Amino acid sequence: MPQQAKNILFIMCDQLRWDYLSCYGHPRLATPHIDALAARGVRFSRAYVQSPICGASRMSTYTGRYVQSHGAAWNGFPLKVGELTIGDYLRPLGVRTALVGKIHMEADIEGMRRLGIDPQSIIGVRVAECGFEPYERDDGLHARGPAGRFDPRPPRYNRYLNERGYAGDNPWHDWANAADGGGNRLASGWAMRNARKPARVREEDSETPYMTRRAIDFMTQAGDTPWCLHLSYIKPHWPYIAPAPYNDMYGPDDVMPAVRSEAERRDPHPVYRAFMDHDVSRTFSRDEVRAEVIPVYMGLIKQIDDQMGVLFRYMEERGLFDNTMIVFTSDHGDYLGDHWLGDKDFFHDASVKVPLIVYDPSPAADRTRGSACDELVEAIDLAPTFLEIAGGDPAQQSHRLEGRSLLPLLRGEAPAAWRPFAVSEYDYGMQPASAKLKVAPRDARLFMIADRQWKLIHAIGFRPMLFDLASDPDELRDLGADPAYASQCRRLTAALSDWGLRASQRTTRSERQIDNARGKAAQRGILIGVWDEADIPAELWSGYLRDNG
Amino acid sequence: MPQQAKNILFIMCDQLRWDYLSCYGHPRLATPHIDALAARGVRFSRAYVQSPICGASRMSTYTGRYVQSHGAAWNGFPLKVGELTIGDYLRPLGVRTALVGKIHMEADIEGMRRLGIDPQSIIGVRVAECGFEPYERDDGLHARGPAGRFDPRPPRYNRYLNERGYAGDNPWHDWANAADGGGNRLASGWAMRNARKPARVREEDSETPYMTRRAIDFMTQAGDTPWCLHLSYIKPHWPYIAPAPYNDMYGPDDVMPAVRSEAERRDPHPVYRAFMDHDVSRTFSRDEVRAEVIPVYMGLIKQIDDQMGVLFRYMEERGLFDNTMIVFTSDHGDYLGDHWLGDKDFFHDASVKVPLIVYDPSPAADRTRGSACDELVEAIDLAPTFLEIAGGDPAQQSHRLEGRSLLPLLRGEAPAAWRPFAVSEYDYGMQPASAKLKVAPRDARLFMIADRQWKLIHAIGFRPMLFDLASDPDELRDLGADPAYASQCRRLTAALSDWGLRASQRTTRSERQIDNARGKAAQRGILIGVWDEADIPAELWSGYLRDNG
Repeated sequence: MPQQAKNILFIMCDQLRWDYLSCYGHPRLATPHIDALAARGVRFSRAYVQSPICGASRMSTYTGRYVQSHGAAWNGFPLKVGELTIGDYLRPLGVRTALVGKIHMEADIEGMRRLGIDPQSIIGVRVAECGFEPYERDDGLHARGPAGRFDPRPPRYNRYLNERGYAGDNPWHDWANAADGGGNRLASGWAMRNARKPARVREEDSETPYMTRRAIDFMTQAGDTPWCLHLSYIKPHWPYIAPAPYNDMYGPDDVMPAVRSEAERRDPHPVYRAFMDHDVSRTFSRDEVRAEVIPVYMGLIKQIDDQMGVLFRYMEERGLFDNTMIVFTSDHGDYLGDHWLGDKDFFHDASVKVPLIVYDPSPAADRTRGSACDELVEAIDLAPTFLEIAGGDPAQQSHRLEGRSLLPLLRGEAPAAWRPFAVSEYDYGMQPASAKLKVAPRDARLFMIADRQWKLIHAIGFRPMLFDLASDPDELRDLGADPAYASQCRRLTAALSDWGLRASQRTTRSERQIDNARGKAAQRGILIGVWDEADIPAELWSGYLRDNG
Repeated sequence: MPQQAKNILFIMCDQLRWDYLSCYGHPRLATPHIDALAARGVRFSRAYVQSPICGASRMSTYTGRYVQSHGAAWNGFPLKVGELTIGDYLRPLGVRTALVGKIHMEADIEGMRRLGIDPQSIIGVRVAECGFEPYERDDGLHARGPAGRFDPRPPRYNRYLNERGYAGDNPWHDWANAADGGGNRLASGWAMRNARKPARVREEDSETPYMTRRAIDFMTQAGDTPWCLHLSYIKPHWPYIAPAPYNDMYGPDDVMPAVRSEAERRDPHPVYRAFMDHDVSRTFSRDEVRAEVIPVYMGLIKQIDDQMGVLFRYMEERGLFDNTMIVFTSDHGDYLGDHWLGDKDFFHDASVKVPLIVYDPSPAADRTRGSACDELVEAIDLAPTFLEIAGGDPAQQSHRLEGRSLLPLLRGEAPAAWRPFAVSEYDYGMQPASAKLKVAPRDARLFMIADRQWKLIHAIGFRPMLFDLASDPDELRDLGADPAYASQCRRLTAALSDWGLRASQRTTRSERQIDNARGKAAQRGILIGVWDEADIPAELWSGYLRDNG
């Protein structure tokens, strides 16, 4: 019997665009299993990530806080010791919170050392693994170059591949992310001209099915203890390469036209121009690249959908659909050449908007099943949602959690006042654009603020960009320099200003604690502004009423 | 021989107004010892604290960060584990950083527990004592009421008093902060009508000389190891009561007229009005209160000045003036009835501006001796100043330290661009005003932004207040509602908005680390946007160039 959820399955894909699922309208890519989840849950049509890049986005999602609040603003910037994450909120409520897959979290080793926290201790592991029990951590980027390994942690997946007969010391690359190049050579997935070649690994041994099985292992072993499992796939993130048959399930004919216009390249905003100049943007602006990469991107998503079928079948058979909240989302999108850009990193919907589907087994959610919700939701809303599902009260954590529980939306209640704006941020200090524009890292920051019609992009030191999502849903006309829209820009800039002045760091005192403590110091003898003993109740003098003998 | 400072003596008074020293122009209160320090150093005429209240101001001063950045926004709000303080910056440079007196820091015990930090361990003590070695910690408020003690730590000073024959279990109150009330009764210092009665303690045993001697004890024992001593007096903070002869050294004739006008009470800004309605404001608006309290406030300052004489004589005799930077300042001011307000908590200069005198023994500072500096300086500038004196490089800590080293100003160099604005904040969620105005704690926040002529006060949800410091140095005319000044308000509000969007939490990555890391991922095999192996240098493929045997 369906009931209030006791478990949470939090599925995240990496770099999955919001519009590359059939339930979000993709005309060529059928994703029936994900669509079936949407049919049983709520599909959010305006879900924004807090930063269109893996690390910063995830740190926001896991902490329930904006990037400016937690500070881990780019990939590899450590999340400072002391930031609380989903696991820290759920663990005290008896929920085992585990990870299978990617989190892209860099541990604050310097901070841990300063505080004497041993990274090998239980607490140290939690701090280093973003509050998750690392059932299987694999950030999915086992690259290697002249300066060494990108990720110093060799993945269990490499051992698995070796055991299955895939030789070498980095089978992640040599088998799962490379094809045969002819003769004795590898055709690496890093070179996108190889994208449509089949990866050398058997499909069942590729990353997506492997992680699905690991999630099933976890659920099988978990028993009756409530759990929250973060199942976090690396795909369809680059390297863009898929095992057969997913490598050629789609072809150039399935590729949607690029969403771009020549007008975008005429006198663009300086920061946007600098992003268009990035190598990855130039590459993705070539039609041959799109024709080769996008079919495989679609294949990788199709593989995920098929794995959702495997996973959901397992869960159905064990009754887990009766007591498990299931979330399906992504950490950001992928431009794929739209707007003359590649990868992510900027704020068009292709990059900053994500699919978000939430299935809530509770009968209280029956009336929203299969519906779409067009409220502005943010990735930081997941942490408070999970907290509420686990029996906690997000209002008591509102001094830390900046998101809002989605439960009212899932249960068809009209919340008194939902948020009027969504905010996302991007720190481009690590990008060539900052050097080219001679902007110091501290100023190399972009902010997006959007309501249901307008999207403003604020670049420190530059004019704003502005899009009218109603008349220009493809975001092809930047109105930020048009005097006719100055008042619109002022309105959104003022809202962003209010956001910037929010109290995000008063994390050691809650609203309720303050309301309860106000005016109580006199009870402990602090008597400010008293002229005469007779002016205040005698009991307040009780600590001082003694004779001077 | 004077030399580059090796030690730092950081003296802070509590609640000392900027203008209650003769070197800052007080016509009746002669402070020759402090004036002598100013004659050998630089006296800053526009020094602002980051919040006009003890705890928040000090947490900013000790961390070198704005209140919005560290979050300890009011007295008793714990400073979260992980915030670095002066001691954390100086200790790695071999500087013993110790405390004598008050810091008003609440330890983040919950955060420490979560991270497994034992409050009794060396690291735990540092975290709990704001990075200082607590040579003698005494927050100086040993109040007691029906709900118990305000400060659970009994001070060593109480033991000292007992040993000197002052009986009872709270001689801090019964002897140092109370007078004889006639018969067998105490006249508590908490009742301000007793202010001019002599405290029962002998002058030499009162708080100010006791702390001075403890500082001398420290210096005597410190030996040759470089040190930074924070000598932090509780006085002239309330309870306003002084031992003889300081209790009647000044009288009502020495009291300056209150800086206030009837116009201020006509249609005031709603938040200002609510502050005027506070009990302490109503009390201090009465002339009899000012006549009783201000002479003793002056006496307590005079006592501090005399103790400066004792301390400086000791230091001269031991040659410490040759190698010690000496800073004299306060954590905020005291309205004393100006503007119909009492205590501090709002942003008129009486409250938010402090005296700041810095003596730098280095010959490089010879050309500024005895001068006044009218640049906008902030209390958060002290931490980077101390870091630079100790041989560190504040620029390398600019991702954490939000202040600027004062050394260029002390040495008469014209810094390329000094700050154009000073910012201060006040969280009034704990004040009756927030309840009266029905403002939730998260919105009960005030911001001041000032340049050298204008001061704007932004109250969330209300119109701004604005003062023209050039034509109205007494801040008696609020121009914030006058349309003629709308553009001035917009300019300052925009500057505050920029401030609010600053990167304050990216504390785990420095500017230089980012500049050095930019574009280096390819060296570790992350090859984004590559179409063909031939498009990039062969060495970047070195990790992948292997045959598929």
